[in-house]
Amino acid sequence: MLDSFEKQKTISKEEYDRELQRLRTELINAQYEFKKYKRPMIVVLTGLDGSGKGDLVNFMADIMDTRMIETSTFWQETDEEKERPYYFRFWNAMPPGGKLGIYFNGWYERCIKRHLEGTDNAEQFTKKLEEAADFEKMLALDGTVIVKMWAHISKKEQKKRHEKLAVKFKQSNDIAERAQWYYSNYEKITQSAEMAYKTTHNEFAPWEIIDCSDRRTREIRFLQIILDYMNRGLKAELPKSRTDNITGLSFPNVLDSLKQNGETDSKTYRKEMDTLVAELRPLAWEAYKKGLSSMIVFEGWDAAGKGGCIRRLLRAFDMRLSKVTSIAAPTSEELSRHYLWRFWRQVPRAGHISIFDRSWYGRVLVERLENITPPGDWFRGYSEISSFEAHLADRGVLLLKFFLHISDDEQLERFKERQEIPWKQHKITDEDWRNREKNDQYKDAYNEMFFKTSTRHAPWTIVPANDKKAARLTVLRSVKEAFEKALAK
Amino acid sequence: MLDSFEKQKTISKEEYDRELQRLRTELINAQYEFKKYKRPMIVVLTGLDGSGKGDLVNFMADIMDTRMIETSTFWQETDEEKERPYYFRFWNAMPPGGKLGIYFNGWYERCIKRHLEGTDNAEQFTKKLEEAADFEKMLALDGTVIVKMWAHISKKEQKKRHEKLAVKFKQSNDIAERAQWYYSNYEKITQSAEMAYKTTHNEFAPWEIIDCSDRRTREIRFLQIILDYMNRGLKAELPKSRTDNITGLSFPNVLDSLKQNGETDSKTYRKEMDTLVAELRPLAWEAYKKGLSSMIVFEGWDAAGKGGCIRRLLRAFDMRLSKVTSIAAPTSEELSRHYLWRFWRQVPRAGHISIFDRSWYGRVLVERLENITPPGDWFRGYSEISSFEAHLADRGVLLLKFFLHISDDEQLERFKERQEIPWKQHKITDEDWRNREKNDQYKDAYNEMFFKTSTRHAPWTIVPANDKKAARLTVLRSVKEAFEKALAK
Repeated sequence: MLDSFEKQKTISKEEYDRELQRLRTELINAQYEFKKYKRPMIVVLTGLDGSGKGDLVNFMADIMDTRMIETSTFWQETDEEKERPYYFRFWNAMPPGGKLGIYFNGWYERCIKRHLEGTDNAEQFTKKLEEAADFEKMLALDGTVIVKMWAHISKKEQKKRHEKLAVKFKQSNDIAERAQWYYSNYEKITQSAEMAYKTTHNEFAPWEIIDCSDRRTREIRFLQIILDYMNRGLKAELPKSRTDNITGLSFPNVLDSLKQNGETDSKTYRKEMDTLVAELRPLAWEAYKKGLSSMIVFEGWDAAGKGGCIRRLLRAFDMRLSKVTSIAAPTSEELSRHYLWRFWRQVPRAGHISIFDRSWYGRVLVERLENITPPGDWFRGYSEISSFEAHLADRGVLLLKFFLHISDDEQLERFKERQEIPWKQHKITDEDWRNREKNDQYKDAYNEMFFKTSTRHAPWTIVPANDKKAARLTVLRSVKEAFEKALAK
Repeated sequence: MLDSFEKQKTISKEEYDRELQRLRTELINAQYEFKKYKRPMIVVLTGLDGSGKGDLVNFMADIMDTRMIETSTFWQETDEEKERPYYFRFWNAMPPGGKLGIYFNGWYERCIKRHLEGTDNAEQFTKKLEEAADFEKMLALDGTVIVKMWAHISKKEQKKRHEKLAVKFKQSNDIAERAQWYYSNYEKITQSAEMAYKTTHNEFAPWEIIDCSDRRTREIRFLQIILDYMNRGLKAELPKSRTDNITGLSFPNVLDSLKQNGETDSKTYRKEMDTLVAELRPLAWEAYKKGLSSMIVFEGWDAAGKGGCIRRLLRAFDMRLSKVTSIAAPTSEELSRHYLWRFWRQVPRAGHISIFDRSWYGRVLVERLENITPPGDWFRGYSEISSFEAHLADRGVLLLKFFLHISDDEQLERFKERQEIPWKQHKITDEDWRNREKNDQYKDAYNEMFFKTSTRHAPWTIVPANDKKAARLTVLRSVKEAFEKALAK
């Protein structure tokens, strides 16, 4: 397919000059307008070795305003990246809204390479391509403009260029060998690229093929594509999610049927807690040695005791191994990217523990109920979250999700207590009282969340928490058991 | 000294409860007020092994609002960190204004350890302590509240605790060995700590010693210190720089005496440029292989041709090795930290090249002349910049600084051209015309900058740039020669 695609008509010097002049002005204007766009535009630029991708990017730097362009390459994996799911680096490189991000080779290079080398078979390759498509769709529905370009040249042309470069830059042997590798794998690479094209070419992130035989032709085409897609973003001609029929359904009522514990006496509590802490400590170090990372999420009603549980966990987890992230309102940097961006950045290194006081579930809870996010957007959250958690599971991250449940009466009592004790007053605001009025809606949202995001690799543990002591013991015991199980693997 | 410092009076259970109640409320209130503070507060918490530093931090998490606290440990060096100057990690961990950052062991652990192990002799140790003091002073003068705490216990107490922990947590052999190491080096560690105390205890970042023999006593003292220093920040009782006598002096007029080049003809230019690009390419790869990092800074008059030079360099530097950072107005994240923060983050990994289109010199140029930064603050910039560049030089980073000089008439011509050519119009704004009126002031600032920041390890190269072609050739030639020289070492 790629070899037989219609060659682009070669353009004359005069056409080139005329078109370039037009594109220069229009691109600059488009960039300045795009500055105000809420999300970035991402160009994945990949293709055959020797096609001149690097030159295209340098050429673009001559035409457009580079202050609004961020170029990222992914050839050199840092140990920080190796220890996290593959997509970590692509999230990390995400430019803020209004900017153009050039992802050099993007997420395709590695999966094509692994397929070529036989590390991934056809099925695994397809799975990775589908993952790529999911990732792109998620960003696109969130407003990111995405276009993928395949820079193509014929086999003959590739050979010619390799030879010319070798002479010009007196290249060392390893570079010459690398060129030879590309040349002798030309057909295989092209076939894999065709597979990638067929699997991931869609309305969310289309592919464009650039015929790179002729310099002038490829330069003009490259700029035309960028201008075209930037304008689509500006004219809001982007795919949208459906917003009909997303509320009103009811889900199994897990919370109301949950049995609360009786009161735990202080002596038993202290003894058990000390034992659990002592047992958890060496487990955390063992996980560190084995490179087992974990993420522990706490959600629950206001005043349910999330902080108390977290502080008990910290007695067991050395500060050098663990980090707590409290989720508050997003910063402007966070707001100008997909909402999962800030959570991807918190994925721990090998052997480390990230604890979350509230989490990415805010998307389908507070953002939903406070109308912070329109229905079409938060509703996609369920599948986006599942996909995020699947990436974690794939990489072997131990993900534990706790929901602390207290009754309405218990919450009321705790709110009142907070108002009376001076050092607890900061924990209670008018907003908390207003939220309480929405408790029924929250309950529905919680039940929907349990139903949709309890997966095999990341189930919810719902903890009866009217008795704080019992809740803390339950949490520490679950964590201990989960670590033991994961370490025994 | 440390062993003979006055033991803190052990407090009773009643006193403890009363004082804790007071501290809880006051700390929470102080934290909420501190939220609005423009800079963070940094607590360096270090001290003897077994003194209970980790417990203190966990205890604090019980008392204060953890959403405004960020705890960082630095025991595990990532390869990203190893490849950069030592202080990179501490800049990276810098919390934004309004937050409290706990730096566990901070920058002291490594230098004390290296001294103990004999890697650094007394002189080197002192040099590192002075570096620490410089770093702290710089942050303090910028408004960051800094306090350093040394958690102390007697040798006898340390042994007792190590033994108790070994039993309680059934510790593995390597942990027991580690404890033994600390115990047998008790005197040496204490002596090194005393050296650190004596060298770096000052008004900018004082040390506080915490007697950790007794739990209640150390907990109360720890909180008292935090509250005390947070209040100093809130009451603006911080050291300030002097602002008198910082302008009005005159410096050697380098610019007016610079000879501009005659015009380079196009044919010669193209030939030389191609040769230089071809020679630079393999040098960049060699630098990559040898782990030689470089930073190339461009400053100069508006329209002096910085962008043009950078784009020529990019023809030689593979995109995988190089990154261009264009310095625009800082983001809110950047504004809430010391101005050097965003430049530290751009220090390249081993073997990589960072190119800057304008740079940290903005502090003593645009920020000075546009009154963005008060005199007392920008004036410190000269020494802050020199210190930053010394850190780079120490780590072996190749730093090249180019200043492109054009005459007033040449600038006027280029401005007019920009106004006439459609795709150049975005490059010229009313602001540029206003800046032109300040050209004399800028010239003075440039001359002062050359005088104060041309150091042996980071001299300025002033490039006559009335002829664009000559300027580009000069820049590429200088870069080539600098790479050759650095690689020959």
